[in-house]
Amino acid sequence: MLKASQRGNAMPPSPIRKLVPFAEAAKKRGIKVHHLNIGQPDIETPPSILDAVRNAPIKVLAYSHSAGNESYRKKLVQYYSKNGIDIDYNDIIITAGGSEAIVFGLMACLDSGDEIIIPEPFYANYNGFAVMAGIKIVPITSHIENGFALPPISEFEALITPRTKAILICNPNNPTGYLYSRNEMEQLEDICLRKNLFLFSDEAYREFCYEGEYTSAMHLKKIPDQVVLMDTVSKRYSACGARIGAFITRNKDVYAAALKIAQARLSPPGLAQILGEAAVDLPDNYFDSPKAAYLSRRNTLVARLNAMEGVFCPTPGGAFYVIARLPIDDGDRFCQWLLEEFHHNNETLMLAPASGFYETKGLGKNEVRLAYVINETDIHAAMDCLEIALRTYPGSTLKNG
Amino acid sequence: MLKASQRGNAMPPSPIRKLVPFAEAAKKRGIKVHHLNIGQPDIETPPSILDAVRNAPIKVLAYSHSAGNESYRKKLVQYYSKNGIDIDYNDIIITAGGSEAIVFGLMACLDSGDEIIIPEPFYANYNGFAVMAGIKIVPITSHIENGFALPPISEFEALITPRTKAILICNPNNPTGYLYSRNEMEQLEDICLRKNLFLFSDEAYREFCYEGEYTSAMHLKKIPDQVVLMDTVSKRYSACGARIGAFITRNKDVYAAALKIAQARLSPPGLAQILGEAAVDLPDNYFDSPKAAYLSRRNTLVARLNAMEGVFCPTPGGAFYVIARLPIDDGDRFCQWLLEEFHHNNETLMLAPASGFYETKGLGKNEVRLAYVINETDIHAAMDCLEIALRTYPGSTLKNG
Repeated sequence: MLKASQRGNAMPPSPIRKLVPFAEAAKKRGIKVHHLNIGQPDIETPPSILDAVRNAPIKVLAYSHSAGNESYRKKLVQYYSKNGIDIDYNDIIITAGGSEAIVFGLMACLDSGDEIIIPEPFYANYNGFAVMAGIKIVPITSHIENGFALPPISEFEALITPRTKAILICNPNNPTGYLYSRNEMEQLEDICLRKNLFLFSDEAYREFCYEGEYTSAMHLKKIPDQVVLMDTVSKRYSACGARIGAFITRNKDVYAAALKIAQARLSPPGLAQILGEAAVDLPDNYFDSPKAAYLSRRNTLVARLNAMEGVFCPTPGGAFYVIARLPIDDGDRFCQWLLEEFHHNNETLMLAPASGFYETKGLGKNEVRLAYVINETDIHAAMDCLEIALRTYPGSTLKNG
Repeated sequence: MLKASQRGNAMPPSPIRKLVPFAEAAKKRGIKVHHLNIGQPDIETPPSILDAVRNAPIKVLAYSHSAGNESYRKKLVQYYSKNGIDIDYNDIIITAGGSEAIVFGLMACLDSGDEIIIPEPFYANYNGFAVMAGIKIVPITSHIENGFALPPISEFEALITPRTKAILICNPNNPTGYLYSRNEMEQLEDICLRKNLFLFSDEAYREFCYEGEYTSAMHLKKIPDQVVLMDTVSKRYSACGARIGAFITRNKDVYAAALKIAQARLSPPGLAQILGEAAVDLPDNYFDSPKAAYLSRRNTLVARLNAMEGVFCPTPGGAFYVIARLPIDDGDRFCQWLLEEFHHNNETLMLAPASGFYETKGLGKNEVRLAYVINETDIHAAMDCLEIALRTYPGSTLKNG
């Protein structure tokens, strides 16, 4: 049989999805599984933005402009302006989710064999996009002890080679929830300026910041031509399935290259662009409710985790994830055990082993990522399970475990 | 200023879109432009499939399965079965248009530096996808004299190197409209079998065949593991803007690789999957009306073209394109002149120079592609313009031009 390409083989399987068969088997045994493993919000998609699609007078669902409908891009200029980001509609390319925006950035700015520095733990799918683009991810380790703050800039400098073309951050961060401070963003600005690097900024969780000031890479004044913003409506409006994002840069050369990539695939999803455009007209207080819900859940989750013996969970400033250190030998084994062998009152929980978010082998072995995308009653039930599980898990590292 | 990557620079601009500014300027001067340049059908999108989206009871527009909704894939099995294609729903990955299916195929089956043989003239965006995947397109010239039939297999054999991994065809063909015969398909089957190559088949225009038997690459019995089908609902249901296609293969190794690529980008467009699923339930006679419209237009267009002095246009068996040879010095110059300097009763027409569909430099210089996606009254008006234009164009090669 003809085999897939080496590139196809090198594509990493999703570290989050590999436990799915065990969860399905648990459910078949009648066990309720609390899903803290994926970033699929339970918040309702605003009905008005779905209605905009329902009421659109479409006769022929035609190709849109390759950069997305002009009316949508012009609306987005208003949205970004409200967020202190001053761009022109011709700086925007509408994409099939944030995913396509990331691929456009890697393809338009880096050649095969080039390197990109990313603080780890990082969003695991960056690995897949890097394989597709033939580029090398150079990780720089951030640490749970200081809540996954930006590593010292000297460590970035030490990793820069002639092939280094960009630094990529996710802010607020998936999987750590860390919110980069103004000072940290300016340190990144400074090194990108000195070393002539692109700063890629994945800002999928912009709306969900709980304390401190939010600084977009687009707020940085000294490197206007070096910033590429990757954005998406997925989490912002709880519309992950729409697959609508945006690639944004003021660099005209990079924009022109990305637009040619966009033209090759003709246009972004048409129906969902209507949804995205309508979302810009949601009232300014729309985010108050989901943000309050996430904040309350975060507080509950972090408090419950830190109250458990041997558990440490920093309080993150944004997004809807936390990474916790557990008193366990191996997160992959523990998460599988939770699904295969454990239950408490016929309930268990599904977590994402943090190892999949680290590029450096061996790191994150006793860490897990938890997404607080379920209601607080269920968070409490899940934490009840976890508390008991940590006492009974055979690989526990607690003294009396 | 930081520059785009070499890859970004190497991305070819769309040969069809480069004339757009001249068309826009003509319209500003009050001239009506008949668009025969792009494959955007004027046929109405079936209202019932748009209604399926409108009536979908969505609370949270969540990620779908990375391979697409299982219910949709199972429906598609029925659709393909009606077309004599026997596949399982686990052979299908729903994609963002046919474009993403092509990218998945190139990435999953070819490595950087590998080669793919494609009969030219071919769909120009294959060039862009090849640049993204770092692969080399090896063209094999088909000729207008025999209606762009499959070149002799001996010519394919002569081009095969150790890096050749696949042959790609588009059937029925864009831009030529050529419909490959059963015998030609079996010749391709035979060489792929002997040389151990993938056969990629872009079948976007499957429903629009006007004479002769349609043979899908999936009908070939001897190379089940070597065929990759790239498909889309764009033209089939006049729903180009939906961006819903399919990557289909019975090769489990290739499928697994493509699924990992699909997982990296999470899921295909969600709203449009509902549309695609509903389309499978359209009555079997749905295609009668658009197909009759296209056939009648084709006959009108081909007759009008061949009635003009010095024009030759073969009668293609499928899709909704023809390539015509005109008595002109240079198709790019002529098409621009039509928009910039010509009008007849304040009307002109926009065509696609065929040079952009040939990989071999210098070929197709006196050829243009015409898409019959406008009504017959407008086709006649456009042909009236063309007939006069060919007599007045300064670069005419007619003796008394």
